[in-house]
Amino acid sequence: MRHGGELNEAILAYETWGELNDNKDNAILILTGLSADSHVASHHQDKHDTAGWWENMLGPGLPIDSTKWFIICASSLGSCKGSTGPCSPNPETKESYKFTFPDLTLEDIANSSYEVVQSLGIDKLACLIGPSMGGMTSLALLLQHPNAAHHMINIAAGCHSEPFSTAIRSLQREAILTDVNFNNGNYSSDQWPRQGMKNARKIGMLSYRSAAEWKEKFPRSLRQRPHKPFGHEFPVESYLEHHAEKFVHQFDPISYIYLSRAMDWFDADDYKQNESDNPMQHINLDSALVMGASTDFLFLPSQQETIAKLLTETGCKTQLEITDSIQGHDAFLVDQENYGRIIGKYLKQILSAKQS
Amino acid sequence: MRHGGELNEAILAYETWGELNDNKDNAILILTGLSADSHVASHHQDKHDTAGWWENMLGPGLPIDSTKWFIICASSLGSCKGSTGPCSPNPETKESYKFTFPDLTLEDIANSSYEVVQSLGIDKLACLIGPSMGGMTSLALLLQHPNAAHHMINIAAGCHSEPFSTAIRSLQREAILTDVNFNNGNYSSDQWPRQGMKNARKIGMLSYRSAAEWKEKFPRSLRQRPHKPFGHEFPVESYLEHHAEKFVHQFDPISYIYLSRAMDWFDADDYKQNESDNPMQHINLDSALVMGASTDFLFLPSQQETIAKLLTETGCKTQLEITDSIQGHDAFLVDQENYGRIIGKYLKQILSAKQS
Repeated sequence: MRHGGELNEAILAYETWGELNDNKDNAILILTGLSADSHVASHHQDKHDTAGWWENMLGPGLPIDSTKWFIICASSLGSCKGSTGPCSPNPETKESYKFTFPDLTLEDIANSSYEVVQSLGIDKLACLIGPSMGGMTSLALLLQHPNAAHHMINIAAGCHSEPFSTAIRSLQREAILTDVNFNNGNYSSDQWPRQGMKNARKIGMLSYRSAAEWKEKFPRSLRQRPHKPFGHEFPVESYLEHHAEKFVHQFDPISYIYLSRAMDWFDADDYKQNESDNPMQHINLDSALVMGASTDFLFLPSQQETIAKLLTETGCKTQLEITDSIQGHDAFLVDQENYGRIIGKYLKQILSAKQS
Repeated sequence: MRHGGELNEAILAYETWGELNDNKDNAILILTGLSADSHVASHHQDKHDTAGWWENMLGPGLPIDSTKWFIICASSLGSCKGSTGPCSPNPETKESYKFTFPDLTLEDIANSSYEVVQSLGIDKLACLIGPSMGGMTSLALLLQHPNAAHHMINIAAGCHSEPFSTAIRSLQREAILTDVNFNNGNYSSDQWPRQGMKNARKIGMLSYRSAAEWKEKFPRSLRQRPHKPFGHEFPVESYLEHHAEKFVHQFDPISYIYLSRAMDWFDADDYKQNESDNPMQHINLDSALVMGASTDFLFLPSQQETIAKLLTETGCKTQLEITDSIQGHDAFLVDQENYGRIIGKYLKQILSAKQS
């Protein structure tokens, strides 16, 4: 692991869509956001499959077209979605790692996903796709393995987190760590840091959308008298409560804080030899699509501009697309019209260039 | 009280600066932000006096010049700074009101401060000044007493809170209400909802400044290894911690949630008779200065534009000043250069118009 320590017998849970061609040159790796898992989209051949977090983006005929590409996505190392993480049993002690899990960085997450790619016999990815934390993990991958991919789609990310974004995440971690039921990581399903998880989710949600979207979505006219004093009465409060309740058992508290800290730690500037270096100077991409939304205040458009600028300086043909989506940081999940169109077009261009 | 209930033997703690003239026409009333008290500035005749929250704004020769004006500021009704609030003893039971304190609205706060003004024999205020919550309370005062003042300086406020702002405040209230030590209001100095107060303060602080200011203020290079796993290591975390620690005993938890809810409840539109009405149609001001900062995302410049537009429609000579201060919502407290200059100039104009 980047900060020391090691994991033995670690498992990476991954899913694939489409077929790897004979040249093994049609592979796409998707690196996920913090709370997402490997289930990007349902596997359309299985009628009983559930929808994924990018259901409208990946599948036959969709922007990430599974009839053309072989797509791989692993649940992040350190998460609680099948891959080894702090809640997994340590094979030596048979007990959950909890806080004995080694320090986790985005570089470790990148490397473990890259191991999956290599284990499938793929020399070089056609494209690397990463939204949010996955965008930073994509950079972490390329900074360590500059020739890992021909192309990259980097969405709603930055070269590092800015203080406002770190503050949001720090408060989320504190909400979990200070819940009495967290009990230094020794919680159980009966003694779950439920309130901390809820508060953490709500703090996060402050930063995922935009004030403009909420203003449209939650008119004051929908206010309801609360059931008890200081109960919820504004529509935005019910919305936050609903999503927070859903989240409580959807993610493991320790996994969450490990991943959250990894995001704050990541800094592309760690790869500079000298202050004046372009940290991405060794990255060897043919082209890149860098995307963001003008209303995103967790990862600002100026951060995507920086990524695009640094990549351009390396000779990479870089396309920067800042959409005017109203949905803030979450736009890549919600604004199918813009994101689907731009990503679909970019991947089609890669495909036709490859075939010609 | 606006929502029912009453307070008997209520006390309003207030301070004054300067001298009321014989015509009693040089009075300014300042209505405060949520966590501020009546101590706007030190009383310069008293050398041992402590600095106030607007120390550079009010005093001899300062923008709110105490050699020219008679300035009044009361600690808000419901707060814990000398005026009657949820922690005060109910004269009937001799015990603290706690949750038996009646519902509190900005209208109640406005009316109680206005009682102070009237008790001093002042018929009409020369000027009403309110930043943040005080800006909304100023509107609450004028909506109920349309002839209460000749002029108004309304800063960093809105006709109501927008959902993002309500969400921030809702999360702050929840952080306090869900602290185990809050104990349905039955906390004591030994069992203080310390963590809830800290978390609430930190959530608030996310919204008081701007991401741009924090980026300048907290470079990643100042990162320090934390003392313990998941301890603070980024400068923004130490900053939040420092301010949160200071706040824990600076304000009473129940007072805080009463005032916070009052802000979310306020809506100038409650004063419309018909949907198409201008809610301020009866307000009878000679002039108004409406101010905000372009980086404020708790009360957006668009909200100050709305206030200015509605006042202009009533025939009030309205000056709108959106500064480019980098300090966000707190700019009125910090950006003395811009706020001091604009407020000072406006008050001088009023004075010379009055004298001519």
